[in-house]
Amino acid sequence: MTTLTPVPDDRFTFGLWTVGWQARDPFGDATRAPLDPVEAVHRLAELGAYGVTFHDDDLIPFGADDRDRAKRIAAFRAALDATGLAVPMATTNLFTHPVFKDGAFTANDRGVRRFALRKVMRNIDLAAELGAGTYVFWGGREGAESDAAKDGRVALDRFKEALDTLCEYVRDQDYGMRFALEPKPNEPRGDIFLPTIGHALGFIERLEHPEMVGLNPEVGHEQMAGLNMVHGVAQALWAGKLFHIDLNGQHGPKYDQDLVFGHGDLKSAFFLVDLLEHGGYDGPRHFDYKPLRTESADGVWASAAANMRTYLLLRERAHAFRADPAVREAMTAAGVDELMVPTLASDESYADLAKDDFDLAAAAERGYGYERLDQLAVEHILGAR
Amino acid sequence: MTTLTPVPDDRFTFGLWTVGWQARDPFGDATRAPLDPVEAVHRLAELGAYGVTFHDDDLIPFGADDRDRAKRIAAFRAALDATGLAVPMATTNLFTHPVFKDGAFTANDRGVRRFALRKVMRNIDLAAELGAGTYVFWGGREGAESDAAKDGRVALDRFKEALDTLCEYVRDQDYGMRFALEPKPNEPRGDIFLPTIGHALGFIERLEHPEMVGLNPEVGHEQMAGLNMVHGVAQALWAGKLFHIDLNGQHGPKYDQDLVFGHGDLKSAFFLVDLLEHGGYDGPRHFDYKPLRTESADGVWASAAANMRTYLLLRERAHAFRADPAVREAMTAAGVDELMVPTLASDESYADLAKDDFDLAAAAERGYGYERLDQLAVEHILGAR
Amino acid sequence: MTTLTPVPDDRFTFGLWTVGWQARDPFGDATRAPLDPVEAVHRLAELGAYGVTFHDDDLIPFGADDRDRAKRIAAFRAALDATGLAVPMATTNLFTHPVFKDGAFTANDRGVRRFALRKVMRNIDLAAELGAGTYVFWGGREGAESDAAKDGRVALDRFKEALDTLCEYVRDQDYGMRFALEPKPNEPRGDIFLPTIGHALGFIERLEHPEMVGLNPEVGHEQMAGLNMVHGVAQALWAGKLFHIDLNGQHGPKYDQDLVFGHGDLKSAFFLVDLLEHGGYDGPRHFDYKPLRTESADGVWASAAANMRTYLLLRERAHAFRADPAVREAMTAAGVDELMVPTLASDESYADLAKDDFDLAAAAERGYGYERLDQLAVEHILGAR
Amino acid sequence: MTTLTPVPDDRFTFGLWTVGWQARDPFGDATRAPLDPVEAVHRLAELGAYGVTFHDDDLIPFGADDRDRAKRIAAFRAALDATGLAVPMATTNLFTHPVFKDGAFTANDRGVRRFALRKVMRNIDLAAELGAGTYVFWGGREGAESDAAKDGRVALDRFKEALDTLCEYVRDQDYGMRFALEPKPNEPRGDIFLPTIGHALGFIERLEHPEMVGLNPEVGHEQMAGLNMVHGVAQALWAGKLFHIDLNGQHGPKYDQDLVFGHGDLKSAFFLVDLLEHGGYDGPRHFDYKPLRTESADGVWASAAANMRTYLLLRERAHAFRADPAVREAMTAAGVDELMVPTLASDESYADLAKDDFDLAAAAERGYGYERLDQLAVEHILGAR
Repeated sequence: MTTLTPVPDDRFTFGLWTVGWQARDPFGDATRAPLDPVEAVHRLAELGAYGVTFHDDDLIPFGADDRDRAKRIAAFRAALDATGLAVPMATTNLFTHPVFKDGAFTANDRGVRRFALRKVMRNIDLAAELGAGTYVFWGGREGAESDAAKDGRVALDRFKEALDTLCEYVRDQDYGMRFALEPKPNEPRGDIFLPTIGHALGFIERLEHPEMVGLNPEVGHEQMAGLNMVHGVAQALWAGKLFHIDLNGQHGPKYDQDLVFGHGDLKSAFFLVDLLEHGGYDGPRHFDYKPLRTESADGVWASAAANMRTYLLLRERAHAFRADPAVREAMTAAGVDELMVPTLASDESYADLAKDDFDLAAAAERGYGYERLDQLAVEHILGAR
Repeated sequence: MTTLTPVPDDRFTFGLWTVGWQARDPFGDATRAPLDPVEAVHRLAELGAYGVTFHDDDLIPFGADDRDRAKRIAAFRAALDATGLAVPMATTNLFTHPVFKDGAFTANDRGVRRFALRKVMRNIDLAAELGAGTYVFWGGREGAESDAAKDGRVALDRFKEALDTLCEYVRDQDYGMRFALEPKPNEPRGDIFLPTIGHALGFIERLEHPEMVGLNPEVGHEQMAGLNMVHGVAQALWAGKLFHIDLNGQHGPKYDQDLVFGHGDLKSAFFLVDLLEHGGYDGPRHFDYKPLRTESADGVWASAAANMRTYLLLRERAHAFRADPAVREAMTAAGVDELMVPTLASDESYADLAKDDFDLAAAAERGYGYERLDQLAVEHILGAR
Repeated sequence: MTTLTPVPDDRFTFGLWTVGWQARDPFGDATRAPLDPVEAVHRLAELGAYGVTFHDDDLIPFGADDRDRAKRIAAFRAALDATGLAVPMATTNLFTHPVFKDGAFTANDRGVRRFALRKVMRNIDLAAELGAGTYVFWGGREGAESDAAKDGRVALDRFKEALDTLCEYVRDQDYGMRFALEPKPNEPRGDIFLPTIGHALGFIERLEHPEMVGLNPEVGHEQMAGLNMVHGVAQALWAGKLFHIDLNGQHGPKYDQDLVFGHGDLKSAFFLVDLLEHGGYDGPRHFDYKPLRTESADGVWASAAANMRTYLLLRERAHAFRADPAVREAMTAAGVDELMVPTLASDESYADLAKDDFDLAAAAERGYGYERLDQLAVEHILGAR
Repeated sequence: MTTLTPVPDDRFTFGLWTVGWQARDPFGDATRAPLDPVEAVHRLAELGAYGVTFHDDDLIPFGADDRDRAKRIAAFRAALDATGLAVPMATTNLFTHPVFKDGAFTANDRGVRRFALRKVMRNIDLAAELGAGTYVFWGGREGAESDAAKDGRVALDRFKEALDTLCEYVRDQDYGMRFALEPKPNEPRGDIFLPTIGHALGFIERLEHPEMVGLNPEVGHEQMAGLNMVHGVAQALWAGKLFHIDLNGQHGPKYDQDLVFGHGDLKSAFFLVDLLEHGGYDGPRHFDYKPLRTESADGVWASAAANMRTYLLLRERAHAFRADPAVREAMTAAGVDELMVPTLASDESYADLAKDDFDLAAAAERGYGYERLDQLAVEHILGAR
């Protein structure tokens, strides 16, 4: 079916580090050779992607000299030009090099913090050149294993200082770029600052330019805390802060699995697609996953395609779900629409509540019919309606 | 030792529902008789508590008539007067009665939402009368089991509407009361809205009167999501939002255990006490726990005393930790103080960073000494230094 | 489609306590009226179930006199006769009454342990009368909140003593009944003895009659420990110990949700059905779930039907998955069949291994194609192939 | 105090891979230089350790030639001789090399399975030479991410075949060695076979030589599944299967942290030491931890010392706990001793139970006093009694 073949209008994007992951894990060496970013661009374009994203070090090895850097950037640009792929987002690697072992913006070592800022600014320049409208911050090393190691309040002071400084930089350069924070509860640090969508939302409001900063939530990261990703994304949308999104799969609280989208909690993936498609989000559908370590190149590209195909299948299912008269009826019976009606009418105040003639017993007995509604969703996911 | 005997200045408070819990659980009937609030007040005063807190229904059974209500309130006030116990906080039971099975402020049934507001306002009046400066909102039923049951964005609209309305009410009455939201990830609902400290912090900023609304984080609730309570409280303090706190114990992601404070993650309890004592929090130390279902009245009062004694022991340990020269030295070596130094000097801008002469290799090799520091903390907890 | 309408041959069974759950939870009162077991039998028969199961107290209130007991049993038998429903399993309520607050077989109080044995024997007699071939033991109260409360080794001595005694009883009566242990990690106790399928399997081997005792694993219970239910059931089958199974849904480590089968981890549910259907299990498909507390009677029966319909849909999907040539090919490529070939040929010993000419590099480079295979499974679940 | 200085009689052992960990993690490069095993032996001896343990590849790089191998073994032996350190345990690295990406004993590739057996046998020979009485099997790669990738029953067939073959090998060589399985729920595989102590206990009973095979449980691995390590170890002891133990720290379900013993759940560590010291375990106290990635060599050795010191402190606390008359009294009141009394007297059968005159109401009202008992434990941990 046409709609199940990915096209650029679907806005699917991939990080270079996803298909390019060499599959080194905490207990094992790499199982795959490095992937040239140029090849990644061409292969993703063939598969129907809209764009690619990158960390500075994905494109240009840490410590490369200027000439090497320029050569690699030129080759990447040529591939983008040849394929038409966009670069809607970029980010900084502030976690691989040992210098960041205690964090970047919140490292206790002030010199490291300053180095981190320089590294980010340099890559923001490149991101701007390549047309990226969103710049992501995943603070994977911003955390601690011992509560004695850092005062959390002071760490947030430094985190804020870093983002305020970088906002100023972007404004001064007129890059028109927005920042998106990517929360994660833990791993590689025992506990990471800004561990969930919520913590990031609260933090943003204390920045100098909250309007420039939003969220890049990741499916697996919320699920590592046992949280409902759909609720989290709904709150981000509600706050006007869903600037970007990382789609993948996870099986609850354990190490960060970065499975193919839909290969973890499939039911939640359905409702997430439903929310993105019907909730006004129009940014990229960005896959931040890792092809299993058991796979060779064939498996890498099969997994890349699987992410998109599953999204498209779920999109189709979500449209059918919303269009199904039985679903509409069940939603009405369940009061889903009734929740949209303000609790107080526009001409009421709290004082008017005293006039209510409320039938407590009837309200207590009301059945909401959520079982029926949830089963309709399951049957739509199963393609059985 | 004197400091291990609780006195009112320690600001220990208990909910009536804690020592009064009859130990009904999802698989078992009550094992204890009801406890008269008057007795609770007297016993807690004898144990050295500073105050008590209550849900409306703890004091006055749901549906009691006005005369019964007045009698019960009078008896409670008399007990408070006789003992000198304060009522620094009150809250509403919006979860026990079947009418709230789908929520209160976010129930799909509009009549229920209106009824919930009336129930809260009535108890706010009583709370104000009794001198409570903080009013807590735990939205235990504000959630869902199926993502089809509620649009999370709409639910937050209604949640905001409720809190805005109630803020207006409190302002109109000049109660000078503050609200404190108590997050919880799940149970009794599959997923609860505002599941963590962070989500509540973000939400508050979208209210009409964010300055009136803060947090009442609970140890066990954050730990049910595998999150670091100390980090969460640090963020709440950083945001100026730690209005109240619920102390108890929990063993990670599972059902809500409400153990005695310190009977769960003891090391985290130590660092939490350290943060509360040295972090500028001056509100009540409120125990929101449940005496084990295996206990008779003796065990109930032993457990109440245990909460306070453990807090005092940990306070003593935390003072000793901070005063230990070896700890000071280890903290300095670890750069804990260095994190307090702004990354940019007051006369610097990001442009000055380019001048740095950074020794990358030296910074990458620096050892932070967190193992030594954490071990010092463990030895202080063990009373071994 | 015919195969999606439940019929007795599908062997679907329900506990009386499932559709009969009144929806009392740790924070809320009952939202539904009691359900007469007779009505439950008739309604389940109409929906296409094969049988019902019960705890003694589901059928006969704790403490009922002999006359009341006889009357209730007679009414239940009449309903069974009228509908043709079987009673393939029964079990004992050793958790609701306060007397069991510290356990039944492992209660520290010896009198309680003796009372528990009597209660079980009495209900085993009834179960035998009603034709139950399996008797389940869920030791929900066999556990502790403090590690000081019980020596785990001694508790297992008592647990073993109880089961050995009951095996002897069943043998003496010639009931031809088998026992099935139902593991659960926690709730209502902080930690429950025999927390997983594995712990129960190990324990059984130390009993006097291990051949009489097997497992009744429950989907949600394993998932509360973050464990893979499909792997657990595979191990139980491998050990010849899958005597019965409890199907339901759960969203990872949190309180015991008892959702409708498939309403939790749908992908895992698919693989579980696949294993049950293709793995030689021929016992009942028993649903041990709780209709959501938001539901009235309509929702209860809708949810009962949903369990069966989802199972049947997944069974259909599993058959199609196994029959799909693309799946067969992917499995062969992945070496799924190769795993069936013994590592040593029947005429080899370890000494023969030295003769191997192993191409290490080729084996290290082999791609297993699990991404492709998993995606085929996802597409079959989605009904998209 | 003398007893807080580690001596060989304390039987503390460390894996070479612990202090030798270079701190490469899934998101970061190594932060520490390789550590020569010879240096490790000398440093550990100085710190008071009793022995060291190793994977083949810790001592001899994968693929080293015979001459290099011999040289490294000789140097290691010389260090052992010089220091008097023992090698009570050894194990095989069946996880780092890409060839093991799909497992070793349960790899779908039969050639890999055969290679794994050869690798194990070769290192068993070395282990025997060095006097190791225990050989550990951690099957970190024996698992899957997709339930389609392996039939769990077939995987257990192969797992059993491997262990049966290796048992035969050890018997044929008269090595007098015992095997110890080390369970882990996940990481690096999505789900690992034999995920908990229980699953391994059950599995062992189906081997050809169950008497040769026991357990090497690891604190953090059980806690990654939210399970109670003390209960698990108690069951292993009860089954006569605690052959070895891995001590470390973990904060519940998340990535495998391998913290210093006591730096995770301190209360559970206390009860574990209490069980080991009073429960008849006389094997090594083996630390399987990873010094934090933030540490240089100083931190590595500080952390090694911290493991032992915390164990010794907890041992001291556990002795004091057991000796405290208030604890004895509380245990008696709680019925801890009563649980040791068989439920049926030696001359009773189940038929005698009918004669009981049981006071149900009194038993239901009995308070067990676990709150008091648990608080006594907490105060002993805190060194406050």
